Amino acid sequence: MENNIFQLQYAMDTFYFLVCGALVMWMAAGFAMLEAGLVRSKNTTEILTKNVALFSISCIMYLVCGYSIMYGGDIFLSGIQDVDVTATLGEFAGREDGFEGGSIYSGASDFFFQVVFVATAMSIVSGAVAERMKLWAFLAFAVAMTAVIYPLEGSWTWGGNAVFGMYNLGDLGFSDFAGSGIVHMAGASAALAGVLLLGARKGKYGANGQVNAIPGANLPLATLGTFILWMGWFGFNGGSVLKLGDINSANAVAMVFLNTNAAAAGGAVAALITARLLFGKADLTMLLNGALAGLVAITAEPSTPSALQATLFGAIGGVLVVFSIITLDKLRIDDPVGAISVHGVVGLLGLLLVPVTNSDVSFTGQLIGAATIFVWVFGASLVVWSILKAVMGIRVSEEEEYEGVDLAECGMEAYPEFSNK
Amino acid sequence: MENNIFQLQYAMDTFYFLVCGALVMWMAAGFAMLEAGLVRSKNTTEILTKNVALFSISCIMYLVCGYSIMYGGDIFLSGIQDVDVTATLGEFAGREDGFEGGSIYSGASDFFFQVVFVATAMSIVSGAVAERMKLWAFLAFAVAMTAVIYPLEGSWTWGGNAVFGMYNLGDLGFSDFAGSGIVHMAGASAALAGVLLLGARKGKYGANGQVNAIPGANLPLATLGTFILWMGWFGFNGGSVLKLGDINSANAVAMVFLNTNAAAAGGAVAALITARLLFGKADLTMLLNGALAGLVAITAEPSTPSALQATLFGAIGGVLVVFSIITLDKLRIDDPVGAISVHGVVGLLGLLLVPVTNSDVSFTGQLIGAATIFVWVFGASLVVWSILKAVMGIRVSEEEEYEGVDLAECGMEAYPEFSNK
Amino acid sequence: MENNIFQLQYAMDTFYFLVCGALVMWMAAGFAMLEAGLVRSKNTTEILTKNVALFSISCIMYLVCGYSIMYGGDIFLSGIQDVDVTATLGEFAGREDGFEGGSIYSGASDFFFQVVFVATAMSIVSGAVAERMKLWAFLAFAVAMTAVIYPLEGSWTWGGNAVFGMYNLGDLGFSDFAGSGIVHMAGASAALAGVLLLGARKGKYGANGQVNAIPGANLPLATLGTFILWMGWFGFNGGSVLKLGDINSANAVAMVFLNTNAAAAGGAVAALITARLLFGKADLTMLLNGALAGLVAITAEPSTPSALQATLFGAIGGVLVVFSIITLDKLRIDDPVGAISVHGVVGLLGLLLVPVTNSDVSFTGQLIGAATIFVWVFGASLVVWSILKAVMGIRVSEEEEYEGVDLAECGMEAYPEFSNK
Repeated sequence: MENNIFQLQYAMDTFYFLVCGALVMWMAAGFAMLEAGLVRSKNTTEILTKNVALFSISCIMYLVCGYSIMYGGDIFLSGIQDVDVTATLGEFAGREDGFEGGSIYSGASDFFFQVVFVATAMSIVSGAVAERMKLWAFLAFAVAMTAVIYPLEGSWTWGGNAVFGMYNLGDLGFSDFAGSGIVHMAGASAALAGVLLLGARKGKYGANGQVNAIPGANLPLATLGTFILWMGWFGFNGGSVLKLGDINSANAVAMVFLNTNAAAAGGAVAALITARLLFGKADLTMLLNGALAGLVAITAEPSTPSALQATLFGAIGGVLVVFSIITLDKLRIDDPVGAISVHGVVGLLGLLLVPVTNSDVSFTGQLIGAATIFVWVFGASLVVWSILKAVMGIRVSEEEEYEGVDLAECGMEAYPEFSNK
Repeated sequence: MENNIFQLQYAMDTFYFLVCGALVMWMAAGFAMLEAGLVRSKNTTEILTKNVALFSISCIMYLVCGYSIMYGGDIFLSGIQDVDVTATLGEFAGREDGFEGGSIYSGASDFFFQVVFVATAMSIVSGAVAERMKLWAFLAFAVAMTAVIYPLEGSWTWGGNAVFGMYNLGDLGFSDFAGSGIVHMAGASAALAGVLLLGARKGKYGANGQVNAIPGANLPLATLGTFILWMGWFGFNGGSVLKLGDINSANAVAMVFLNTNAAAAGGAVAALITARLLFGKADLTMLLNGALAGLVAITAEPSTPSALQATLFGAIGGVLVVFSIITLDKLRIDDPVGAISVHGVVGLLGLLLVPVTNSDVSFTGQLIGAATIFVWVFGASLVVWSILKAVMGIRVSEEEEYEGVDLAECGMEAYPEFSNK
Repeated sequence: MENNIFQLQYAMDTFYFLVCGALVMWMAAGFAMLEAGLVRSKNTTEILTKNVALFSISCIMYLVCGYSIMYGGDIFLSGIQDVDVTATLGEFAGREDGFEGGSIYSGASDFFFQVVFVATAMSIVSGAVAERMKLWAFLAFAVAMTAVIYPLEGSWTWGGNAVFGMYNLGDLGFSDFAGSGIVHMAGASAALAGVLLLGARKGKYGANGQVNAIPGANLPLATLGTFILWMGWFGFNGGSVLKLGDINSANAVAMVFLNTNAAAAGGAVAALITARLLFGKADLTMLLNGALAGLVAITAEPSTPSALQATLFGAIGGVLVVFSIITLDKLRIDDPVGAISVHGVVGLLGLLLVPVTNSDVSFTGQLIGAATIFVWVFGASLVVWSILKAVMGIRVSEEEEYEGVDLAECGMEAYPEFSNK
């Protein structure tokens, strides 16, 4: 009968993983809609193509090699037939801590949950390089990022391996619960490397330092994307507790859901007010970026803050993201959707906020971890982007950029009957 | 070992709440898309802004004071560290009814589930006042509604407190399972108060009594919003069983899912046929409102009807909503998305249908409850709207209304490349 | 105490069904968005109307008679009050295989899960006949399909009844896990019958054999629809394990989620590359159809392949769908959204791939099953479409087709402010 209880716990933890994984997969739709809404209509088909293709490539490359680099596990050829129920039950029984100990669940559910994280990291890149990058160069980068760059970084942090044999980040007091740094800042670092090599869109920055707004073509789509990401984030953070099936774990999962929501709310309101004070208007795109910034800010530690603290952490992220977007434009770093600010700058903020509520984590450890992630992902990405630039070129021609990448790359318009321009 | 079973039940009930809560949160996206699709393109950015902001404000205000007003609980400063597993297990063991008794689950999951209901009530308002209300006046009302007006009303019904010390609605035979009245009619009552003070949109009603159709700019968006609401409603009603983890509770949850779906289907088909008979066309917006009306109609009691009864109840809602929308237009009550009809008129219907299948509930109790909700929410809202009107004004200028509130309030167009108008 | 464990298992399996069912219901939104994005703007309101209405009709007809035809069960008048907990516990205790045996769960959850499958089959039809079919003829067909044609077919396969008393498909080694044939190929067979009677859209095929592209009006919508279907498919396939609550079942569910995702990824990438080689461009609509083809291909058996095999099976589907779409156009079978290729041709592929990884299934059995499904559904549909053609006509007038069916059938435009055409 004890076996039956273990079986139920196993099933519950597995299902919890699968539900959370499905929610994170849903974030791919969120990124696609957000980015498609924020670019001009002439570049919409291409960014949709990128988003569907990068998600698919992520799934394939992580299966082929990424997962085994990151966790040492191998899911490549294994199917359901490999599972040994007796051994699994023995694993439960052999644990010192018994029922409340670490989770035991289906390996397939673990892979499913992890693979959608890779895609999230890669999705961040697509927005930042939008409207002027060659599609196939981007997809080639996606292969490198999801097969090697991200998995290696992940192996040092969540996988527990030492960095180049030098130091183990966990031992240094580094902690990143669901990936403010490991996923979001990593994606933004790869994006930044691409953007620096790529340069700004034509017409974005004037000769005398002025910044020209290039409005997105479809704001309902961008709003929908934000709501999808908000919802998917419950899976992203909630699933990162890694276990549901006892009272303490269930409480942790619930607190994570609550705090994730609170931080998004705090970020949205703070960004709305900040934008109102700065620009005199209720800026919808800043509101959306504020909600996302709140989500990124809480992701490094959504379990230890109180709900009020989570709201405040989110609000700090919401204020920061507005100033970061303005600053990047002053630096002429052209990021059409604000991805570097939302995921990179606020991702770093998230890491640095962890020690405030989690005394097991050190500020120094967070800085070392953040620096390690940035140096590796930015450096490796710069190398890959540079190779791609040399080999196949990464930027479309001026004429293609003027006409829109949709016709050049995809041969079809996103809204053939609507656009006036 | 018994403890382990309790722990599993606790975890299961908590997860069930969280999944349902995530689905209800998703309804915020549904309202945003529905309303954005049904307004004109020049007022779309503003309604998107309203929807994201009101959801965020609801989360913050319910945290700060709403939840403690409604249920006496306080989640403000508490984090995950406060939970006492031994005490929780003692709570299970001490119950007379044991395993099958009332649910015990994470307090954070309860807050998460409840907070998304507040936002739903507030979302109803935004559609009705669309296209002519000042954004910041609306957000100020959202603060009052979610901090005080809704929580106080909720405390009399779901919270169990007496109304102004007079009568206890539950004792009078009032019952509202998931909130046809408490959430939907309440939202519609607040909306009605605002609409009456605000007046109709320019050009909606002609001098000789004619009603001019003002078509929505994006019907796929409105349809998407309806599907999102339909899906989210499974969480809204399904989660309101409040417990999953025994056979009776699981059966109730399943029946609620089934009936919720059946009522929506009934409402949709009934409204489609009604509109066909009245207007000679298959009116998509009536079809959508019919589905929503079916959902509202079953919300007061989705557990006791058979699936056939649920379909019929939904169908009654679907017919009623068409006539209600026509009638409100005759009364020159201008509700761009039909929210007052869908959530208010059909919400009342839902309350009145409960005694048909639930013999514990009295018709009189439902009427008293409905009257109490309406009088309080309508009255309090009228006061708040009036104060806002006096202090800051609630209606945009004629010029702003003509040009669209997007430029005036948000400084950006929703579809800068598309609109011909 | 053992009873409590059974109760938890019952609750878990029920909840798993409900969550999966909600995801499949969500696919209705996916089909609606996919189809609305791929038709011209002048036919968008009508296809949205069709999709909401067909889902509603499916729910009603399956309740009224479909479910009892297919499984013999009857949910028509039964409500939650009919459940007998003691009997249910006795059912658990009386099973030879005990805890790990077949699942026992709420009958309402079973109906809820099954009903959304009917709607999926019917959704497939709406896309193929888009842009020229009369709305009410289509809805009349939906009644016949969901009340009789599909349930009868389902009773021979999943229900286990013999076909016209001749042979029992299961005994012949036929297996279709989640419905590549039973749902998808069936939907496509009904669609093909309609398309053949209906003829191609005006202007699609030129006099000299040329095929004119008729681009969809809103590709972000089509992409969103694909993502929704991708997500919903986790419920479609994952729920078809029919049980979650023991280690073996949980592993199967997890493997199914993983393989479903892998197949979609494989299909997407394969179709993208195939289209690039054939057309020289990254064709977004082929990419989307490739992802869907991968999903259809794995649906007949998502539990036995390894993740790598699932990716490859999906990829085969992705290549096949591109050639199928081209071939159908050569045959002048006009399918605006590619539904016959995605669900029909690749559905057949899915059936034929089952014996590769599941040795209990025979190639012959799959062929007989596929032929049986096709002959029945195509034949019965042809009869029904022919009757409808004779009685009320199935094609709109040339003038209505030229002006768009939205104004003729629904009396409103989907995008009244946008379209240039």
